[in-house]
Amino acid sequence: MIAISTAAPLRIVVAPSGFKESLDAESVAEAIAAGVRRVVPDAVIDSIPLVDGGEGSARTLARVTGGEMIPVTVTGPLGTPVDAHIAILGGPGERTGVVEMAAAAGLRLVPPAFRDPGRTTTRGVGELILAALDHGCRRILVGCGDSGTCDGGAGALQALGVELTDVRGESIRPGGAALTGVHRIDIGRMDPRLADTGMVLACNPHNLLTGPAGVARVFGPQKGADAEQTAQLAAAMDRWAAVLAEHCGTELGRVAGSGASGGLGAGLAGVLGARLRPRFEVMLDHVDLDAALATADLIITAEGAIDFQTPHGKVPSEVARRAKPYGRPVIALAGTIGRGARDNYAAGIDAFAGILAAPVELSEAIARAAELITDATERALRLVLVGAAMGRAA
Amino acid sequence: MIAISTAAPLRIVVAPSGFKESLDAESVAEAIAAGVRRVVPDAVIDSIPLVDGGEGSARTLARVTGGEMIPVTVTGPLGTPVDAHIAILGGPGERTGVVEMAAAAGLRLVPPAFRDPGRTTTRGVGELILAALDHGCRRILVGCGDSGTCDGGAGALQALGVELTDVRGESIRPGGAALTGVHRIDIGRMDPRLADTGMVLACNPHNLLTGPAGVARVFGPQKGADAEQTAQLAAAMDRWAAVLAEHCGTELGRVAGSGASGGLGAGLAGVLGARLRPRFEVMLDHVDLDAALATADLIITAEGAIDFQTPHGKVPSEVARRAKPYGRPVIALAGTIGRGARDNYAAGIDAFAGILAAPVELSEAIARAAELITDATERALRLVLVGAAMGRAA
Repeated sequence: MIAISTAAPLRIVVAPSGFKESLDAESVAEAIAAGVRRVVPDAVIDSIPLVDGGEGSARTLARVTGGEMIPVTVTGPLGTPVDAHIAILGGPGERTGVVEMAAAAGLRLVPPAFRDPGRTTTRGVGELILAALDHGCRRILVGCGDSGTCDGGAGALQALGVELTDVRGESIRPGGAALTGVHRIDIGRMDPRLADTGMVLACNPHNLLTGPAGVARVFGPQKGADAEQTAQLAAAMDRWAAVLAEHCGTELGRVAGSGASGGLGAGLAGVLGARLRPRFEVMLDHVDLDAALATADLIITAEGAIDFQTPHGKVPSEVARRAKPYGRPVIALAGTIGRGARDNYAAGIDAFAGILAAPVELSEAIARAAELITDATERALRLVLVGAAMGRAA
Repeated sequence: MIAISTAAPLRIVVAPSGFKESLDAESVAEAIAAGVRRVVPDAVIDSIPLVDGGEGSARTLARVTGGEMIPVTVTGPLGTPVDAHIAILGGPGERTGVVEMAAAAGLRLVPPAFRDPGRTTTRGVGELILAALDHGCRRILVGCGDSGTCDGGAGALQALGVELTDVRGESIRPGGAALTGVHRIDIGRMDPRLADTGMVLACNPHNLLTGPAGVARVFGPQKGADAEQTAQLAAAMDRWAAVLAEHCGTELGRVAGSGASGGLGAGLAGVLGARLRPRFEVMLDHVDLDAALATADLIITAEGAIDFQTPHGKVPSEVARRAKPYGRPVIALAGTIGRGARDNYAAGIDAFAGILAAPVELSEAIARAAELITDATERALRLVLVGAAMGRAA
């Protein structure tokens, strides 16, 4: 057995992402912490689940700030009611509401047979913003990610009283396809509280509204669009970008984050003046990751998959990037280790480990993720401790 | 990136088992060494592939002793010719031949549709022993394991000139089922060279010829026997044990290793006076594992599966047991981490890691085992080095 004998207890920062379609970031952090405690029972564990604006972000931010969750029933992406929520953050400063777009218009809310990004709407996102205003929030953080829509935020704007009309002056119908005919934006009847409300969108800055890497072309297919519909949606986004530019005087189509959540970024930026900020930075406004990293003996991060994409802004690489100035070691756990995973060594992740124990189907791995993560953490930490003993002996 | 800065190069002992139905021990050792070199290019790697008497054992022993392989065509388990081999060990001492029973009568040589342990024969094993005698060997090591037979070694004895007859004085037919009628053993026409030949069987000492944990009941089903046939084979082994006891004056049925390779152990011990020795000990007569363990900074072992059975005499636990007196850390890689794997921590394996990177079918994991082992070694060693840096800093 390994002798664990350090003068001071090990300080371990646990800063994982959630595992898509499996566990939210808090649950991943709990599973990792359980594995750490099996091996180093007296470790000081600093648990910092990292969210990216997508599913589970509101709940996690409410918890880490000591805030509260408020259930709200809104119009879902298919037009039928869904049970959603907003978070009111705790702590000092202006009363801040968190609207997680996925709670009202997430892909998870659209059964595969009904996936049609030409028709799904972000109306519920606007209704969540209204709920935040009703609860006295004058600062609103909109988390993007995991969306099931491609309506440029048109539905959300309409819910807030913005009139979007076609050339005949009639309101456009819900869904991205209708933006092909959008002609004019009128904010005369917009909710007046929005005038003195600061709004920030937490976006993936790589998502753009228009162009060859525009949101319709990149995400349309996974939201259910075929080739023809993808082309139509791309044209609709071009039209929407033109109308937004005419309204606000700024060309938003290629602005970083404009394509976030099916163009919600562009819509809220162009009409409401919302700021588009990189999601990871926004989330880190609310948790002091750097202070924790600075004093950690070891940092454990995690993500559902580690592969060639990870170095491009995913949670494990962001954690590694921030840990480097302090010279702290970062290890990453992954549900799946994919193509190009070794690129992460050069990108600053010192070591990583998979969670799978035996040949298994993806569905089973997803169902048993918490247990697999705990066991894998134990295995990884034991390897680290083998090394620690070697290092002390050297 | 991890700084690798030790005064002396790391000494790493690589001592894996083979991965059943996938890679032999040497190939596993090579795959691990490749992973080690990726992370610590200047490591001194002491590669000691460990064999257990089963498939690949003869080749590995020939290599580690500087011996040679001799191809021999013999009668296969189904009575048709198979290309087999013996090894002549190098090094000092008596000229020693290695007969790997699986080369002549292994389960791999019996296609699933033909699996019938009542009929398969060890005749080819006797023919390999004759070949070793022809090559001047007067010490013969028979490696048991991975057998496709349950004939009590009757076929091997017949090939060596031993007459096995029924109550009418007629020779019994090939296969374990015929032992139901065995009546008498006559060594009058046995190959005379056997009289001054020392024979050792490398056995799993848990395998017994008769009783509730006898070889027919434990292994019959996996060799293709149904319930009725298993009961018949168990009765045949009882009969064989009685005839052997009458012949040699010793009750062998419950002697450790008597059930090795479908009762080959009992047959060769009872008629030829072969010694039944624990397989791991026999194999370690030929490689100086202890000397390597004593000076290693780190020991890496491996097996196809690590689970609750591992502590009961499997290669990784034997390696750990032998490393403990020297206080050397042992880590184990596994294709599959199964039920009860954590028992291995208490049994002396300091840490282990799985080789799987993503959800996958067993067949694919087997096909890609070498690559998976190399990548997994790299990952595990990087975790160890993260710890080493922590240990030096502490």
